[in-house]
Amino acid sequence: MEKRKTVSETRTILSDIMLPSQANPAGNVHGGEIMKMMDNCAGVAARRHAHKNCVTARVDELMFYHPIFVGQLVICEACLVYVGRSSMEIKVTVRVEDTYGEERQALALSAYFTFVALDENGKPCEVPRLEIQTDEEARAYDEGRERSLRHKRRSGEPPQADAIPR
Amino acid sequence: MEKRKTVSETRTILSDIMLPSQANPAGNVHGGEIMKMMDNCAGVAARRHAHKNCVTARVDELMFYHPIFVGQLVICEACLVYVGRSSMEIKVTVRVEDTYGEERQALALSAYFTFVALDENGKPCEVPRLEIQTDEEARAYDEGRERSLRHKRRSGEPPQADAIPR
Amino acid sequence: MEKRKTVSETRTILSDIMLPSQANPAGNVHGGEIMKMMDNCAGVAARRHAHKNCVTARVDELMFYHPIFVGQLVICEACLVYVGRSSMEIKVTVRVEDTYGEERQALALSAYFTFVALDENGKPCEVPRLEIQTDEEARAYDEGRERSLRHKRRSGEPPQADAIPR
Amino acid sequence: MEKRKTVSETRTILSDIMLPSQANPAGNVHGGEIMKMMDNCAGVAARRHAHKNCVTARVDELMFYHPIFVGQLVICEACLVYVGRSSMEIKVTVRVEDTYGEERQALALSAYFTFVALDENGKPCEVPRLEIQTDEEARAYDEGRERSLRHKRRSGEPPQADAIPR
Amino acid sequence: MEKRKTVSETRTILSDIMLPSQANPAGNVHGGEIMKMMDNCAGVAARRHAHKNCVTARVDELMFYHPIFVGQLVICEACLVYVGRSSMEIKVTVRVEDTYGEERQALALSAYFTFVALDENGKPCEVPRLEIQTDEEARAYDEGRERSLRHKRRSGEPPQADAIPR
Amino acid sequence: MEKRKTVSETRTILSDIMLPSQANPAGNVHGGEIMKMMDNCAGVAARRHAHKNCVTARVDELMFYHPIFVGQLVICEACLVYVGRSSMEIKVTVRVEDTYGEERQALALSAYFTFVALDENGKPCEVPRLEIQTDEEARAYDEGRERSLRHKRRSGEPPQADAIPR
Repeated sequence: MEKRKTVSETRTILSDIMLPSQANPAGNVHGGEIMKMMDNCAGVAARRHAHKNCVTARVDELMFYHPIFVGQLVICEACLVYVGRSSMEIKVTVRVEDTYGEERQALALSAYFTFVALDENGKPCEVPRLEIQTDEEARAYDEGRERSLRHKRRSGEPPQADAIPR
Repeated sequence: MEKRKTVSETRTILSDIMLPSQANPAGNVHGGEIMKMMDNCAGVAARRHAHKNCVTARVDELMFYHPIFVGQLVICEACLVYVGRSSMEIKVTVRVEDTYGEERQALALSAYFTFVALDENGKPCEVPRLEIQTDEEARAYDEGRERSLRHKRRSGEPPQADAIPR
Repeated sequence: MEKRKTVSETRTILSDIMLPSQANPAGNVHGGEIMKMMDNCAGVAARRHAHKNCVTARVDELMFYHPIFVGQLVICEACLVYVGRSSMEIKVTVRVEDTYGEERQALALSAYFTFVALDENGKPCEVPRLEIQTDEEARAYDEGRERSLRHKRRSGEPPQADAIPR
Repeated sequence: MEKRKTVSETRTILSDIMLPSQANPAGNVHGGEIMKMMDNCAGVAARRHAHKNCVTARVDELMFYHPIFVGQLVICEACLVYVGRSSMEIKVTVRVEDTYGEERQALALSAYFTFVALDENGKPCEVPRLEIQTDEEARAYDEGRERSLRHKRRSGEPPQADAIPR
Repeated sequence: MEKRKTVSETRTILSDIMLPSQANPAGNVHGGEIMKMMDNCAGVAARRHAHKNCVTARVDELMFYHPIFVGQLVICEACLVYVGRSSMEIKVTVRVEDTYGEERQALALSAYFTFVALDENGKPCEVPRLEIQTDEEARAYDEGRERSLRHKRRSGEPPQADAIPR
Repeated sequence: MEKRKTVSETRTILSDIMLPSQANPAGNVHGGEIMKMMDNCAGVAARRHAHKNCVTARVDELMFYHPIFVGQLVICEACLVYVGRSSMEIKVTVRVEDTYGEERQALALSAYFTFVALDENGKPCEVPRLEIQTDEEARAYDEGRERSLRHKRRSGEPPQADAIPR
C-alpha cells in the first residue's frame, strides 16, 4: 500500500532576528541571506516528507515584495504543494515583524523551491505521495503539476516520468 | 488602570538549521552560537512585552543537557516567567530535531535570561505586569521572584524596588 | 536622443574560492551562498547599466545543475538580456573549476534575476535601452520580454507600462 | 600520590578587537558574541587543567555590567575556582578598553562556567585537584563548592559524588 | 624535456562586492579581509601552475594605496613573476571600482606572495619553469629572483637550491 | 619637551581559539584569518602609541613558519620597533599552543606592519618618539630604520622626512 503524507505533517517554520552581519551595502538585509534561509526551510520540509537526503533542483517565481531591515524578526514558512516521483515542490513564504512596535506581520518574499530526494547512491528515489486535504491544497497541487510539466517541456525532459496527478 | 500582558501573548520561537560555520573545534555546534540564539529569542519576547529597547542584564542556570550536531534543527522558545518594575525574567528552552529520521525533539539547553527595559534616555523604565493564567505560570512566577530577591541580596541591592508579587 | 547601452558594456564577473564556512550540513557549498553571489553579480550589472540604486524584484528559473564543492573556484557571470522601463532582466550563470587538476569549467547554476532601478525617493525610474548587437542577444531579448509579459499577466499588472520591444 | 594543579598554572586570557560583524541590531556588540568568547576562554582553562576533552555543562550568574562597543578591545580572563571529581567551575571576567583614548579597563561581564572532563568514551572522568595558594582562592573555592551543592540539591543529584572539600 | 608554463596561462582574477560584514571598526573594509582575498587569488594561480597542493610561505612589500569602502567592487589579480625549484612568487594587485558611478578602477593594494608546492607527503616538490614571453615579464622575473636571493641571505638558507635564472 | 613612549607601554597581545569557520579548503586555519588578527593586533599597538586613528600602510617580511590547526590557541603579539615622523613599524609574532596536550608554544608567523597616524582631517600627523630601553630594542630600531629608508628609496620618496635616528 502506497505511503502518503499530508501537507500539514511536514509544514516547517524557521525564524530569526536579522543582524548587521547580514546587511547588504545599502544597509538592508541582503537578499542572498533570505534566499539561504528559504533554502534551509524548504530543505527541512523536503526531508521531513522524504526522510532522505534532499537537494535543491530549482527555484521559480521568487518574488521580493519589500525590503527587510536589520533588527526585524523574519518568519520563513515552507509547505509542500506538489510531489512528483522523486521531486517535491515547496512553497516558501517569508514574513517580517518589527518587534519594537506593533506586532503585525508583512509578507516580504515568496517562492517555489523544488527539491529532489536522493538514495544512498545519490540517485533520485521515490518519495511518499501528498495526501491532499483541502480545496486550497488541491488547487495549489494542480498549479504545481502545471509548473512541473511546463518546466519539463522547456528542458526537453519526458513529462510522464515525474508528473503524477494527485 | 494598570496594563497587563499574558505569557502567551509574547511567547517567541526562533528556529534554524545548524551549519558547519557554527561548529566548535570538536565538530559539534558551538555552545556560544546557541547562547547567541537564546539571547536573540529572549530579547524578542522582552520587546514584545515591553515595547521598548531591552538589554540583557543576567543569565542564570544555563544548563547544557546534550550536544547539538551540525545539520540539526534547533527550536528555541522564550516565555516570560516573572516581571519586576523594569526587569523581565524569561525562560528559554532549546530543543533539537534530527530532520533526516524520526521527528522527535529532545531538550538540549534551558536558561533564565533577565532583560531590563530602557526608555529613550537609556534609563530603566516600567514594563506591563504579567497576567498569570495557569497554576504552572503562577508557580514559575513565584520561583522567578525568589531568584530575583536572592540575586538582589547577593549584590546588595534593595529588594523592594523591583520584586513585585503577582 | 535616447540613451542605449550594449550587453557587453555591463557584463560582470564575480569569482571566488569556496571556503568551509560556506558549506551546508552535507559538506557541499550551501546553495544559499551561491544565490547570494548571483544576487551580488546581477546587482553590479544592473547598477552598471542604470547608474542608480537597484533592488532585486524577482528570480526565475534558478536551476541547480550539479553540486559545488569546498575548494572549487566559482565564476559567476551576469549579463543583461531584457530591459523594461525601469526593470532589467539579467541572466546569471555559475561555472566551477577544480583548480587542483584540469582547468575545465562546468556549468553549475543559471537563473534570471530581475532588478528595478530606483530614484532618490525610492521610486522606480527609467533606465537606458539595451543596444542589441547579435542574433543571440535578440533571441534572448524576445524571450525575456515574453517572461516579463507572462509574469505581468500572472500578477495582474498592466503589461504595457514596462514591456518594450527592442 | 594525587595530582594537583594551581589556579595560576591554567589561568587563560583571550582578547580581541570587536568588529562590526559582531554587532547586534542596536549597533553594540552582541551579547551572544561575548558569551561565545567566554565559553572559548573557560574551555581553554578547563583543558589546560584536565588535559582531556571538556564540555560546557552549566553557566551561572552571568552578569552584564555595561554594553561593549564595536572597536573596543575585549580582554576575557578565565581561572578555575572549584574542582569536583570530573567537573571544574571557572570564573570568567570580561574587561574592555577603548584603545583610542585612555587605557583604563572597565569590567563588562562576569560569570561562572562549569565544564566536565570526558574520557575517550565520552564518560566523565577524574580531573586533578586544585592546589589552593591564597586566602582569596580558598574563599572562592568554598563558594564554588556551595554553588555546586546547591545545584545538585535543585536537580536531585546525590551531592557526595562530586563535591570535594579542598 | 622540461615542462614550462607561461604567465598568462595561470593568471587569476577573483572579484567580489564588499559587504558590511567585512568592515573594520572605522567602517571601511578590513585590511585583513583583502589580504585573505589576495591569499586566495595567489593560491589559485599557484595551483594552476603547479597542479599540486600549495601553501603560503611569505608575503613581501604588501602596500595599501588607499582605503576600500563597503559596496565597492574589488578585483584581485594574481600572476606569477618568478619560479624557483618548488617556490612560486606571485604578484597580486587589487583594484576597486565604485559600481554606482563612473566605472574607472583605482589601484588599492599590491603585494608579492610566495607559495611552495608540496607533494603527497607534504614535502616541497618541483614545479614547472616559467616561460617568459615579454620584456616586462623578464624584468619582473629578474627582480623576483633578486628578492628570493636576498631573502635567502637574510635567513641563512643556501641560495643555490632554489634560485634559478630564467 | 618631546613626548616619548617605551616599547613595553604599548605591547599588545590578542589571543583566540581557532574555529572551523576560519578554515581554508585544506582544513587548516586560513592564512588570511591570521593576517587579519595580526593587522588587528598591530593596529591596537599603533593606537596605544599614537592615540590617533591609525591605518595600515605596509606589510613586510610576513613569514609562515608552519600551519595552524583548528582548535589551537593562537597568541598574537605586537610591539613597536621603529617610529618615523607619522609612521610606526610594528613587529607582530604569532605563536600557537595545542591546549589539549603539552603547553609549549611554537612560532607560526612573524611580520613587520607599518601604520600611519592620521589627524582629524585624515592627514598624517606626528607621533611620540620611541624611548629605547634595551640593546635588543636598539638593534631592532636600527634595522627598522634601515627597512624604512630602503622602502623610501624603492618608491622614490625623499628619505629625510620620516627617517629619524633614535
